[in-house]
Amino acid sequence: MAEQAKRPVKITETILRDAHQSLIATRMSTEEMLPIIEKMDKVGYHAVECWGGATFDASLRFLKEDPWERLRKLRAGFKNTKLQMLFRGQNILGYRHYADDVVEYFVQKSIANGIDIIRIFDALNDLRNLECAVKATKKENGHAQVAICYTLGDAYTIDYYVNLAKDIESMGADSICIKDMAGLLVPYQATELVTALKKAVNIPIDLHTHYTSGVASMTYMKAVEAGCDIIDTAMSPFALGTSQPATEVMVETFKGTPYDTGLDQNLLAEIADYFRPLRDKALEKGLLNPKVMGVDIKTLLYQVPGGMLSNLVSQLKEQKAEDKYYEVLAEVPRVRKDFGEPPLVTPSSQIVGTQAVLNVLAGERYKMVTKETKALLSGEYGRTVKPFNPEVQKKVIGDKKPITCRPADLLEPELKKIEAEIAEWKEQDEDVLSYALFPQVAMEFFKYRKAQKTGIDITEGDKENKAYPV
Amino acid sequence: MAEQAKRPVKITETILRDAHQSLIATRMSTEEMLPIIEKMDKVGYHAVECWGGATFDASLRFLKEDPWERLRKLRAGFKNTKLQMLFRGQNILGYRHYADDVVEYFVQKSIANGIDIIRIFDALNDLRNLECAVKATKKENGHAQVAICYTLGDAYTIDYYVNLAKDIESMGADSICIKDMAGLLVPYQATELVTALKKAVNIPIDLHTHYTSGVASMTYMKAVEAGCDIIDTAMSPFALGTSQPATEVMVETFKGTPYDTGLDQNLLAEIADYFRPLRDKALEKGLLNPKVMGVDIKTLLYQVPGGMLSNLVSQLKEQKAEDKYYEVLAEVPRVRKDFGEPPLVTPSSQIVGTQAVLNVLAGERYKMVTKETKALLSGEYGRTVKPFNPEVQKKVIGDKKPITCRPADLLEPELKKIEAEIAEWKEQDEDVLSYALFPQVAMEFFKYRKAQKTGIDITEGDKENKAYPV
Ligand SMILES: [Co+2]
Ligand SMILES: [Co+2]
Repeated sequence: MAEQAKRPVKITETILRDAHQSLIATRMSTEEMLPIIEKMDKVGYHAVECWGGATFDASLRFLKEDPWERLRKLRAGFKNTKLQMLFRGQNILGYRHYADDVVEYFVQKSIANGIDIIRIFDALNDLRNLECAVKATKKENGHAQVAICYTLGDAYTIDYYVNLAKDIESMGADSICIKDMAGLLVPYQATELVTALKKAVNIPIDLHTHYTSGVASMTYMKAVEAGCDIIDTAMSPFALGTSQPATEVMVETFKGTPYDTGLDQNLLAEIADYFRPLRDKALEKGLLNPKVMGVDIKTLLYQVPGGMLSNLVSQLKEQKAEDKYYEVLAEVPRVRKDFGEPPLVTPSSQIVGTQAVLNVLAGERYKMVTKETKALLSGEYGRTVKPFNPEVQKKVIGDKKPITCRPADLLEPELKKIEAEIAEWKEQDEDVLSYALFPQVAMEFFKYRKAQKTGIDITEGDKENKAYPV
Repeated sequence: MAEQAKRPVKITETILRDAHQSLIATRMSTEEMLPIIEKMDKVGYHAVECWGGATFDASLRFLKEDPWERLRKLRAGFKNTKLQMLFRGQNILGYRHYADDVVEYFVQKSIANGIDIIRIFDALNDLRNLECAVKATKKENGHAQVAICYTLGDAYTIDYYVNLAKDIESMGADSICIKDMAGLLVPYQATELVTALKKAVNIPIDLHTHYTSGVASMTYMKAVEAGCDIIDTAMSPFALGTSQPATEVMVETFKGTPYDTGLDQNLLAEIADYFRPLRDKALEKGLLNPKVMGVDIKTLLYQVPGGMLSNLVSQLKEQKAEDKYYEVLAEVPRVRKDFGEPPLVTPSSQIVGTQAVLNVLAGERYKMVTKETKALLSGEYGRTVKPFNPEVQKKVIGDKKPITCRPADLLEPELKKIEAEIAEWKEQDEDVLSYALFPQVAMEFFKYRKAQKTGIDITEGDKENKAYPV
């Protein structure tokens, strides 16, 4: 391949965010990260993803750490490497839509505390839910990477992705991420998709996937051959299974080819040596379940994320209706169609899954509905790729007039009010944002923080084991 | 890719041999296999590897099963699928060179009891050590697949492999296997190697690798694109880690491409559902160590199989010389060069590794040598790819004249003698072969078998956990 021009692929390292979020319920602490970041800073990664996603919530809730303090410490150590965070559009890092003033302030403070690249996505791929965050990022001179949730379904043609990518470029995004939460993008499909996107836009393409279904490294390989600029990988001790392909493996694979990353395997080996005992500890403690290290091909068979399948099983167990599993599995794609065929990712995966269970158990479709189903069919989450099934919508929301505007346009500014609520606990400006996103959890943390200073320990970290791979 | 001609890739399933040998120390019992083989028989595999390698020894030693009886039961169940075994050339399934009459008789009985394809290899790639087995296979109308041990080193150029492949075709082999025990064949190198072999020979090419270093699925992909006819995979519950890539993953990857295997994912899912509880049980019992499920990139860094590295560590620990690890690691390639640069696979990996340890600990190279080092440098294992270092050879074997002929030419027929030795225990002709290969273990088994019939249990399976991935 000597004749081909060099086109080194760039590596975004996920071990400090997505890898431990996916494998060990986001439980890696700042203390466990700091001793190795000087070495990581020498690797020459395109970026290190280290903040956002579930790490913010998990820091406050389980680790009793201030996430802002973590960010500042990482920034101090990573002198030459770009730091990246994951940002859920108008949901920021939380679970509801926030007013624009909160979104803008969060972006501002994220960048002020050290973030370089903000990866912004919306569960419905409704770009209106990203506008505010993207604008704020540009205003703060950050790199705005907009992520497309990758999913399968009639509506999700190559043309759909191409048009979305063009709109993203027009929005002023600096790069595009194909975000394949469930590992649904198979290798030869990646060839087609990346080839089409590279033709359609000029900004760099980053591919993010998970090893869940076992195809991820091959998918990266085909994507890179088709022109993908950046791939997301995790150092081997926290790679594979529900996490990303291993960094060292992809580096080795492309060595001596036009895509050679140029990264130093011996340096990576030293970094892996540091993380390996953390993996062993997680295995011992049961935090890392060997079951998530295998291959779950059912994700591809049913086109449903692995986590959603296990949720269905446990919901049916609770109702003593495990015999309805295959009926529910058949109902899922029908509900998804009724709901405008959204990608199945938090929160749409839960909404669709729960409604499918209710439809089967009630013996009549949409006889029982959740409030989230109502909100979704009222347009409160935004616009889906296809219209809602009008009959289902009518049955669920009656004569209520659905929202068609950008949902956040209906939200009043809320920062002032939040600021007032926690005035007595505030030790830094950023506390307002912690409280805005997770009022209860942040308040408990503030109390804990105060108690630490006064020497009285009034609370303890919640040890419940929750995983949110995104 | 509609314009490309269809070229379906064939799948050899390893779950009944290499997969459990590599992951759970060859402990899958016949009883665990039988309930699923009717379904497996419907898949349309090119072959199911289910016998030979370490399964013979493990059946007798640990499971207290007659391996011949297993083979007959598998043959009875697999009505439409070819059964394949792994055969170590003149070593058969044992650890020394046997006389030709034993080799011939073993081949004859393997085929008579149900084997269709015999994969034959030699640790030094000395084809003279395969001649007898290949001829015997052809005589019994079996499919003789000759395996090339894949390794790295100055001598192991594409030309080396091409010449070897041509010689194998000339020997009358029905197909060629590239046998990558350690997962050293990286993807773009697979493109070059397979392309060259396909040009050089007309018989089918089968690629066998292990996931150890994390590149295996990508290596299969590039090999298939380059024309590889058959790949070896394992059903997902016993795939990855030190085993093979997952069957379902490779099937899914090639679906809809010119390489489409045509296998039915729903049927494969049912088979995986059967094996998953066996995996869970192995994890619970500690038989499957989650550590072997990860990626061991050191294999690629040091070009030494993972198992050999851990052997070096434990040898040095025993000698309280762990600080010499990197010195020994540097000595390994030097010893390998002195020994004519053999592939590092049983038994050469042990011979080279132990000698490297002795050279470092003694403070003088080849001051202390093992009897295996002497035998190797006397030519008793066969011919290496490069000549031995004459100075080292002289220091080790002195004026003794090295063997240059085929080692087995010096062995007298031994079958008669063996037959006489166990006459009183013999219940079937095949018992002679069990005893020929593993005299002690077979004798213990014969006693156990007799005791079972008389109702007196005089022995119990050895529970020691040993793994031999080949
Ligand atoms: Co992710
Ligand atoms: Co093998």
